[in-house]
Amino acid sequence: MTMSPHSHPVLRLKPKADARKIRHGAPWAWADDLVLDRRSRAIPAGALAVLEDAERQPLGLGVATIEAKIGLRLLDRNPDAVIDADWLSARIGAALALRQRAFDAPFYRLIHAEGDGLPGLIVDRFGDTLVMQPNAIWLEEREDMIAQTLLSATGCTNLIKNGTGRARLAEGLPEVTAVLAGAAPASAIPVPMNGATYMADVMGGQKTGLFYDQRDNHAFAARLARGARVLDVFSHVGGFALACLAAGADRAVAVDGSEPALALAQEGAVAMGVADRFTTRRGDAFTEMEALAAEGARFDLVICDPPAFAPGKTALEAGLRAYERVARLATALVEPGGTLILCSCSHAADLSKFRAACLRGIGRAGGEPRLIHTGFAGPDHPQHPALTETGYLKALAFHLMP
Amino acid sequence: MTMSPHSHPVLRLKPKADARKIRHGAPWAWADDLVLDRRSRAIPAGALAVLEDAERQPLGLGVATIEAKIGLRLLDRNPDAVIDADWLSARIGAALALRQRAFDAPFYRLIHAEGDGLPGLIVDRFGDTLVMQPNAIWLEEREDMIAQTLLSATGCTNLIKNGTGRARLAEGLPEVTAVLAGAAPASAIPVPMNGATYMADVMGGQKTGLFYDQRDNHAFAARLARGARVLDVFSHVGGFALACLAAGADRAVAVDGSEPALALAQEGAVAMGVADRFTTRRGDAFTEMEALAAEGARFDLVICDPPAFAPGKTALEAGLRAYERVARLATALVEPGGTLILCSCSHAADLSKFRAACLRGIGRAGGEPRLIHTGFAGPDHPQHPALTETGYLKALAFHLMP
Repeated sequence: MTMSPHSHPVLRLKPKADARKIRHGAPWAWADDLVLDRRSRAIPAGALAVLEDAERQPLGLGVATIEAKIGLRLLDRNPDAVIDADWLSARIGAALALRQRAFDAPFYRLIHAEGDGLPGLIVDRFGDTLVMQPNAIWLEEREDMIAQTLLSATGCTNLIKNGTGRARLAEGLPEVTAVLAGAAPASAIPVPMNGATYMADVMGGQKTGLFYDQRDNHAFAARLARGARVLDVFSHVGGFALACLAAGADRAVAVDGSEPALALAQEGAVAMGVADRFTTRRGDAFTEMEALAAEGARFDLVICDPPAFAPGKTALEAGLRAYERVARLATALVEPGGTLILCSCSHAADLSKFRAACLRGIGRAGGEPRLIHTGFAGPDHPQHPALTETGYLKALAFHLMP
Repeated sequence: MTMSPHSHPVLRLKPKADARKIRHGAPWAWADDLVLDRRSRAIPAGALAVLEDAERQPLGLGVATIEAKIGLRLLDRNPDAVIDADWLSARIGAALALRQRAFDAPFYRLIHAEGDGLPGLIVDRFGDTLVMQPNAIWLEEREDMIAQTLLSATGCTNLIKNGTGRARLAEGLPEVTAVLAGAAPASAIPVPMNGATYMADVMGGQKTGLFYDQRDNHAFAARLARGARVLDVFSHVGGFALACLAAGADRAVAVDGSEPALALAQEGAVAMGVADRFTTRRGDAFTEMEALAAEGARFDLVICDPPAFAPGKTALEAGLRAYERVARLATALVEPGGTLILCSCSHAADLSKFRAACLRGIGRAGGEPRLIHTGFAGPDHPQHPALTETGYLKALAFHLMP
C-alpha cells in the first residue's frame, strides 16, 4: 500500500471523474470514479484515505469503502487533517452551537451525519440522555473517542448506542444496543416540544425513540388547531395530535398500527392532562380512514404522516399511488373549509412528484385545495447542499375550499 | 352576441385545447385556446361569460378578457352561479375563517386573488383598516358591492383603495388611491407581528404598506437571533431586523435604499423600545455590503431580501447573477458558524435555480453551507395548485460551517 506524504493511503479519481464537483462541495466520491488497483483494493473498509484528483492534487481526507457504491466519504478538505478528539470536538461543538441557538431546551437531533460533517453518525438528544446511531465502520472503530467527546461537549450523563437499522447492515456492522455511559432510562423519557409532552422510548422504540424532524410541521399544524377536531393518521407517539391538543384542539384522534406507539401517545396525553380530549384507534390506516368515513366522522384538521411509501426508485410508482390513495381517503374526512396536511419521508418522491400525487388524490375525492404551507425537516437536520437525498421530509398543508 | 341558457355569453375552447386541465382545477383559459369569432370578440373585457369545452359542455362561469393573454378567469365551476353579494360574501367569509384560524390578531393578507377564489383582488388587513387592490375590471365594476361585503364581514371601519401598480395598467385601469369608507389613517399604522411592531404606511408605502408574506420567514430568523449581531439587507421597514430585536438580538443593522422605509423601521424600533440596539444605513445594498466588509464588520445572522431581480423570463439570467452576487457579498459578512438567509420574490427564478445561484455565491466567497430551512409565503397567501407562479417567495437559511 503506497503511503502518501499525508501519512494515509491515497485514492485517486479516474480522469473521467468530475473532480470539480467534489472541489465545489460534493462530499462523496463514487467507487466507480476511483482508480481501483491492487494497492487501492488493499485499503480496508473504514480506513482513512487521501482523495486525489487525476492530476494528483489532493481533494481532502476521507473514509474509504471502495467495495460500496460510495467509495469515499470526505471528512475534511484538508488532506493532512488529524481525525482525533480535537477534530471531533470541533465538529460536535459546531453542531451543538447551532442547536443551542435554534432551540430553548436540550431536545433535538444533535448530529445529522453529513449535515454536520460527520458521515454516518446520528445522535439525538433527550435532555441528559444521548442516543447514538453509529452507522459506519469508521465510527464504530472510534466509539470510545466519540462517546467521550459527546459526553464532555454536552454534559449529558447517559449515552445509549442504538445499533440497529438498514444503514449498519449495509456497512456489515452487527445489530447491537448498548449503554455506553450512565444508565438506560427506566421508563420513557418525557420530551417537551411545541408545548406538548411526548414519551420517547429510547431503548425499544422506532429509530432513536422519537422523530424530531417533524417539529416545525407539528408547530404549523398546531397553529390551525385551536377549537378544532383533529385526526392524526400514522400518528406514531402522537406527534401531530399532541401538539394540536397543546394548542387548544377540541379533540384529537390518533390512528396507528402500533400498539406500543399508541400507548406512548396515550401516556403523553395523560402527562399533558389532555387525555379526556384524546382517543386512539389501532389498525391499518387505510382501513381506519374508510371506517371513519363510513361512520360519518369529519375533522377540521386531518394530518397523514405515513412511513416511506417510496424509499427507493424501484418503489416510486407504487409509492406515489399509495400517497394518492392516502390523500383521497383523507380528503373525505375533512370538513369543507378545513385543512389537510400530507407528509412524505420518501427520498425518491421529490417535492413536485409528491405534491402532484396529493393533488390527484384530493381532486379524485372532489376537494378544491389551496396550498397554504410547504415544510421540511427542522434546523436540527441540516442538509448538505450536494445531497438532495437528505431533503427527504416534506409536509404540504392544503386548505380545502368550502 | 349569443346568450347561453345560462344567461351569460359563451366562450368555447378550441378542440385542441386541454379542457381536462381546466376540469381538473386550472382556473384560467388562455385566449389562444378560445374560439374567437365575431360573437366572442364582442364580449367586453371584464364581462361574465360561460366557458364551454369544444363539445359544448360547460366548465364554469368566468370573467372574459379575450384581448389579454389570459382569455378567461374562472370564478365558479357552476355555470349558473350568480355573482352577487351572497356569492362574494361566501368567498370572503371562507378567506376570513382561514386567517382567523391561523392568526391571533387581525393583521394579515385577507384576500390573495386566485388563492381565495377572487381573481385579481388583493386585500390586506391592518386591524380595523383594510387596503384593497382591485386589479381587474370585473372588480372595478363591482367596487361598491365588494366594499360593503368586506366591511360587513370584517367589521372594519376604514377601507382604502390602492389602485396603483402594473397589474391595473395591464387591465387598462387608471391609477387611483381613494378612501372608500371611514378615514385615511393620520399616521403609519402599528402592526404587531412576531413580537415586533412594524409601521405600515398604507397611503404612501410600497404595495399595500407592508409585506405580510415574509411573516413565517421572519419568525424563523428570530429563532436564531437571541444574543446575535444581525444584518438586514434590503430591509424595507425592518421586517427581519425588528423581529430579531424582539427575539433578543444583541443589535441589528438595517440597510435599504429608501429613506422613508428606513424612517418607518426606525419608528418601529422606537415603538418597541429597542432603538438603542438598532442602526440604519441608507444606500445601495451592494455598495453598503462591500463597505461593511471593508470595515471588518461581521454578523451572526445576515438576511438579504432583495426586490425581484428576475421578475420575468427575459431577466432570468441577469437576475440569477444578481442573486449570486448578493450571496457572495453577504457570505463575507457572516461570522463562521453563523447563518445566512437569502430570499427571492422572483416568479421566474424557481426554488432550484435560486438555490443553485445562492450556493454558487456562497462557494465563491469560500463558505461551506448547510441548508437548515426552506420557507415560502405564509398561510395568508394560499396558492392555487395550478398556478405555480403564485409561489414566488422563497427563503433559504444556510448555516455556514465554522
